[in-house]
Amino acid sequence: VSELRQNAATRDWVVIATERAERPDQFRNERRRRRLPPYDPNCPFCPGNEEKTPPETYASRLDGQWQVRVMPNKFAAFALRGSRERNTQGLLLSMDGVGAHEVIVESPQHDKTIGTLPFSQVRLVLEAYRSRFRALLEDHRIELVTIFRNHGEHAGTSLIHPHSQLIATPIVPPFVRERMDTARHYYDQWGECLYCDMLKQELATRERVILENEHFVCFAPHASRQPFEMWLLPRHHRSSFGDTSDEEIHGMADGLGEAMARLHIGLDDPDYNYMIHTAPYAELDVRHYHWHVQVLPRLTTPAGFELGSGIYITTAYPEQSAQYLRQVELPENLEALAERAS
Amino acid sequence: VSELRQNAATRDWVVIATERAERPDQFRNERRRRRLPPYDPNCPFCPGNEEKTPPETYASRLDGQWQVRVMPNKFAAFALRGSRERNTQGLLLSMDGVGAHEVIVESPQHDKTIGTLPFSQVRLVLEAYRSRFRALLEDHRIELVTIFRNHGEHAGTSLIHPHSQLIATPIVPPFVRERMDTARHYYDQWGECLYCDMLKQELATRERVILENEHFVCFAPHASRQPFEMWLLPRHHRSSFGDTSDEEIHGMADGLGEAMARLHIGLDDPDYNYMIHTAPYAELDVRHYHWHVQVLPRLTTPAGFELGSGIYITTAYPEQSAQYLRQVELPENLEALAERAS
Repeated sequence: VSELRQNAATRDWVVIATERAERPDQFRNERRRRRLPPYDPNCPFCPGNEEKTPPETYASRLDGQWQVRVMPNKFAAFALRGSRERNTQGLLLSMDGVGAHEVIVESPQHDKTIGTLPFSQVRLVLEAYRSRFRALLEDHRIELVTIFRNHGEHAGTSLIHPHSQLIATPIVPPFVRERMDTARHYYDQWGECLYCDMLKQELATRERVILENEHFVCFAPHASRQPFEMWLLPRHHRSSFGDTSDEEIHGMADGLGEAMARLHIGLDDPDYNYMIHTAPYAELDVRHYHWHVQVLPRLTTPAGFELGSGIYITTAYPEQSAQYLRQVELPENLEALAERAS
Repeated sequence: VSELRQNAATRDWVVIATERAERPDQFRNERRRRRLPPYDPNCPFCPGNEEKTPPETYASRLDGQWQVRVMPNKFAAFALRGSRERNTQGLLLSMDGVGAHEVIVESPQHDKTIGTLPFSQVRLVLEAYRSRFRALLEDHRIELVTIFRNHGEHAGTSLIHPHSQLIATPIVPPFVRERMDTARHYYDQWGECLYCDMLKQELATRERVILENEHFVCFAPHASRQPFEMWLLPRHHRSSFGDTSDEEIHGMADGLGEAMARLHIGLDDPDYNYMIHTAPYAELDVRHYHWHVQVLPRLTTPAGFELGSGIYITTAYPEQSAQYLRQVELPENLEALAERAS
């Protein structure tokens, strides 16, 4: 008999189909990726091509060379033009796509990914995230800032050069509101943050914990939607990613860097998305919500059942995936990881 | 400035990114599909290989040969074993995957799809759906039956032989509950079915209507999540697909058959999913919910933004997609379509 599980935070159900259950190592990426050069003269994100992109909104520089660079997306889905006014015509509701859509270039090197960057470089990327997150929330038209990373074709990437994206929206979509509501109801009922309690419970058994440091814990959720789904939670309760301290950014870089390195090595550079889930403007500092990162490897394709019911079929036990990732051997000198893997 | 739109029924927001907007014909499928034989001796769903599948639960026969055949999925995610009892351990909730997971083989011919089958054959497929839908809801452990179709690799198909699937679940997932609640709130407020009102509004302008017959209307939703999304709604208000009359099944076969033929011809056989959205057991006959079919071509890959915010980025105006599909030339003799396209 297969097992249905529910995630307490998202309320998503997943079914672990035991008839098709696979060993963790069967999810290794079999597609050979094209070997990339460290520099591509035709890549708009490589150094020297800065004039091919819109003007930068942020940069972190070392000896004159940018290390991380942020600019508006050339084909932006949102821009800071227009109003928040809603237009209705019967049942049809529409408004301007007022907001921002930026690209965070993670490294001058064309052939890196978050899973192969030195953790010190991951820190610069996270500092860029935080800086732009804070700046964009200053605009009174912005309600929510979503930061995300697409890696590989199955994760929706078009450009190879390592980059994340940030989208600021003038709305709080129901998808986010439902998760905020779930957390609020839990707090009203139990007087505790749902995510703090989840963290406590994961740390009590450590069955699904992949790694932890002073500031962050990474675990495979009990109801993982896909094999090797990972959640990275700060130990310190905060609603908003924007309020993360420098010390925590340091711990986050080590935690995210190591998690992505384990995924990269353990599954041979699989496609993935990661998303920073954080509170909208009205709830930047509340007791019931806890910002976190969700990493979703794109190893299977959501099909009609997922689209029709919202229930995910998975063929892996998160306990086994977590154990597998814990056992991945990392190079002793983690800074050397980037060199070895490239 | 791009445009944000909200779907009144799903409350999903989409942003139509005008910077990247593409002409409808640019979505034509460029991957050449492998030319398929009408019969494959190694295919478990081809006639003669019936013993390779679990025993059939339904069949429609003509002169001794089955035309449509239904059986449990060999690698079923749900089976009618176990109980509905919930198990909890702190925040972790789980239960048996009690339910059913069946395959509806749509034709003895290996090389057909819903978009190339004669409408008379589509009718046999829909009759099979209805029969199994009704039968499975008799089991007191079943709360919801989801019927869906995956076509092509990007839609999550593993087997080529034309088939749909049906999954009966012991739960009503939040994804479905939220849509039921939205419809109920609308009814409480306005005294009308939201979907009936949506249909009325679409028929008033016909801007997004793709086709209509006596029983069904097919249109591109105002807030289409992907280019060429189509909704097929029965004109007659009903909560449950299972209560569809014979006459309506006839009209549905013509409507769905034609919609899928227009998609098949207009976009050169694109990958797609379709899902029948229908009420759970407790609301099989209510005034506020209206069952329907959603067709979602898989022309783009949902990425981190969609996964993090639930907002979809699309690059097509549904008004243009609908116009394009309306103008697709169908063969005069629609029964001949299957012959021509195969």
